Amino acid sequence: MAPGEVFGEEIREQPGALAGLLDDTREVAAAARALAARRPGLIRLVAHGSSDNAAAYGTYAFGLLAEMTALRDSVSLTVYFEAEVDLRGSAVVALSQSGRTPDVVAYVERARAAGALCIALTNEPDSDLARAAGVVVSLRAGPERAVAATKTYTNELAALALLAGHAAGRGREIEGALSRTVDLIAATVEEAEDPVREAADLLASQECGRMFVVGRGPELATARETALKVTEVARVAAEPLSATGLAHGPVAALDPTFPVWIIVTNDAALPAVLAAAGRARDAGAMVLACGDAAHLVQGASIRFAVPGAPMPLLAPLLSVVPGQLFAGSLAIARGLDPDHPPNLQKVTLAP
Amino acid sequence: MAPGEVFGEEIREQPGALAGLLDDTREVAAAARALAARRPGLIRLVAHGSSDNAAAYGTYAFGLLAEMTALRDSVSLTVYFEAEVDLRGSAVVALSQSGRTPDVVAYVERARAAGALCIALTNEPDSDLARAAGVVVSLRAGPERAVAATKTYTNELAALALLAGHAAGRGREIEGALSRTVDLIAATVEEAEDPVREAADLLASQECGRMFVVGRGPELATARETALKVTEVARVAAEPLSATGLAHGPVAALDPTFPVWIIVTNDAALPAVLAAAGRARDAGAMVLACGDAAHLVQGASIRFAVPGAPMPLLAPLLSVVPGQLFAGSLAIARGLDPDHPPNLQKVTLAP
Repeated sequence: MAPGEVFGEEIREQPGALAGLLDDTREVAAAARALAARRPGLIRLVAHGSSDNAAAYGTYAFGLLAEMTALRDSVSLTVYFEAEVDLRGSAVVALSQSGRTPDVVAYVERARAAGALCIALTNEPDSDLARAAGVVVSLRAGPERAVAATKTYTNELAALALLAGHAAGRGREIEGALSRTVDLIAATVEEAEDPVREAADLLASQECGRMFVVGRGPELATARETALKVTEVARVAAEPLSATGLAHGPVAALDPTFPVWIIVTNDAALPAVLAAAGRARDAGAMVLACGDAAHLVQGASIRFAVPGAPMPLLAPLLSVVPGQLFAGSLAIARGLDPDHPPNLQKVTLAP
Repeated sequence: MAPGEVFGEEIREQPGALAGLLDDTREVAAAARALAARRPGLIRLVAHGSSDNAAAYGTYAFGLLAEMTALRDSVSLTVYFEAEVDLRGSAVVALSQSGRTPDVVAYVERARAAGALCIALTNEPDSDLARAAGVVVSLRAGPERAVAATKTYTNELAALALLAGHAAGRGREIEGALSRTVDLIAATVEEAEDPVREAADLLASQECGRMFVVGRGPELATARETALKVTEVARVAAEPLSATGLAHGPVAALDPTFPVWIIVTNDAALPAVLAAAGRARDAGAMVLACGDAAHLVQGASIRFAVPGAPMPLLAPLLSVVPGQLFAGSLAIARGLDPDHPPNLQKVTLAP
């Protein structure tokens, strides 16, 4: 098997995986009804790794669609430090591809015992997490074999948008918009292949070992996930930052040997993101601009054009795709196999 | 003026700054009474940069001392995306050294207009943020002149512990424990000087441009702040990770050229942190262990011993000190001036 074949296949399977999720939305609609009935004061998102990046998207999906506050909770505060915070009035949305992440399962067990509504978003509906939560939304992405998650991540985004949309009585609208996104993911893969290869060759030739990835709003999730893919697959230390996070310190580290990948999407954060791109360019950094507004970034070294999403909130399902492809291409250009990142297993059972 | 003189002075001023905060705690006690009276379902912490790192500590201070849920809220969801989430039942704790961070001020204005109790933690009680919040806790750290925050950060930690402690009716206990911490900060500075210089020379000689900084629980704030100092002052791309975050992907990037700074404190997260240290060492990384349990890390290249804090929750006021000193020493070893990081101003007015 060629290096990165599985990882690449699963990136290309994302349109099909999303279509699979949309095939039957009864489960997510039922979970959303339970959520709307409970009217939680807070939705506690719990997850690690790529699923935690999807949780960062959940803050925006619930906030913008359902006017609900959803925040990434600290698993360790409850599980390791055993803080006696009141979980009853909250809902918990726990995300895990495998449904086996031990401390996420432990968190859900405690929250459910305390009386919280617990919903598991997982690709394994017959898992410990699904049993612990009681309410399950299957990701229906099909088996994911590559260590680095791709199609389960985008299906987590879609499941969060569906859950928030149905909870807000806008389920049909979001389903329709996601249906129109299926083909756009395929188009994004196709459009990205050339600039991705160019960027990977450029960065590999510079022996670049570090990178910032910048986004804001819903696209902060994309920045986080792009950075994680590049770090784990291509072994380049890529740090995710919000546009304002870049300005509050890390911009000082930039120089011409320091690439900055910026997610530039036509949404309410666009002015702040363009200002961040300007700061990176003024500091001499190589700017790589990805998103449906990438053409607005002046002086970008490479642009990854992404089709406009049916609604801005769904843009992260598209703008992550060039980042996934880039991680794989950069790995190969650096002589690595994207299918076998060192020191990692598919399911992380570590504390 | 010698390079880094101001930055170094302000690190050494931290015991005095903390003593200054403790001199008069009527303001923080009054804010805590208002908080306890409101019994908010959620404390929304809002901040950027170093203050956002202190906010990460706030999650644990409020959770462990007052059994209250406090989470870092998204400023952009409310300010840029104008989500209509219900802020009435929440309290807002906004942190800003200067009190001038524009979107934090805008967030507080909206939250207060919506009926939320808003508390500003700032070193400038006559600032826009203080006026917007109405309830103010002055950090009383004295003027901070270096671009990179140090003494305002540790006073933010202390102010959060005081606020949570007083809200829980444990104000006197926390004040006493913080009083005993004053001299321990001075001792930490003294003990750290030699290993810090050794580490800085070692890393500078390897022309190391990247680094991970790992912590968990309350010490995740320390990991974030250590990484930010190293990034902005020494221009080394240092990424903060939780112990579990390291295991969920970034561990794949480690090799012998990749230093990992780990905050190892004798608290409930210790087993997970030691496991992370083991994973880093097994991947061949150079491990730098900092904290009151640093001696427990096998195979560490350098250890930064830190005195035990009067209570584990206060350990972050000590364990950040070697990181601050290291950032300054590494900068100087790399020929940089810690007092003048490029591309930064003291007050970040950017969006």
